[in-house]
Amino acid sequence: MSGEWIDGMAFGTEVNGHELIMDADGSVGGQDRGPRPKPLMEAALMGCTAMDVISILKKMRVEVDSFRIDIESELTEEHPKHYSHMHLIYRFKGKDLPMEKLEKAVNLSQDRYCGVSYIYRQAMKLTHEIVIED
Amino acid sequence: MSGEWIDGMAFGTEVNGHELIMDADGSVGGQDRGPRPKPLMEAALMGCTAMDVISILKKMRVEVDSFRIDIESELTEEHPKHYSHMHLIYRFKGKDLPMEKLEKAVNLSQDRYCGVSYIYRQAMKLTHEIVIED
Repeated sequence: MSGEWIDGMAFGTEVNGHELIMDADGSVGGQDRGPRPKPLMEAALMGCTAMDVISILKKMRVEVDSFRIDIESELTEEHPKHYSHMHLIYRFKGKDLPMEKLEKAVNLSQDRYCGVSYIYRQAMKLTHEIVIED
Repeated sequence: MSGEWIDGMAFGTEVNGHELIMDADGSVGGQDRGPRPKPLMEAALMGCTAMDVISILKKMRVEVDSFRIDIESELTEEHPKHYSHMHLIYRFKGKDLPMEKLEKAVNLSQDRYCGVSYIYRQAMKLTHEIVIED
């Protein structure tokens, strides 16, 4: 993968053929033309585990009406400012959802399939919970 | 940060107010409506260290005509498939560029400022080189 400085603080790249511009916000000389790089780490984690869970639940024939993930992250104060903890909250809605199967799908992702989780877990605290919502 | 399953394998989120849709490719049931999650880890690294370098070089009053980064990454074969090595190639163009200042800027990012590098280095091999191009 390659990326190139555009101008100011903006840096552009292509991810799987999709243009992605990252930029800083105004307080540090950017123009907010795209996301900050660091929170893309959260997006990568969310997307990785979400796709695992979607595909495992499909194989289990568990149908959910909606599925979202919230991430609560903690950054260190000192340099290099980095995530010290990410907590994932998997939120499902649907009729008579079987918690045990949801747990199995999430655990398979966290323990076996999600290569983003695997990396982050070496370097920070990584926790999760599962919530079935009305 | 929050994200939500759209349909198929697509998962949408907002990063600093910028919409980001991640999707799988057709071979695993996706529709390629956005990037895969895992390579967003490469984008995050590239953007993080690029912005450090841009801002440090500006403080050093080093003017470059162009600056790009290539990343060469290795993934494991076995599950969880994860990056085992990322190699960054910082490529600069400009008139009479001082290699020693470029190295200083890159090393300050890698050793002190880039919180993405810091995390990845705990979990994989992370290397870099600097190239001044004609």
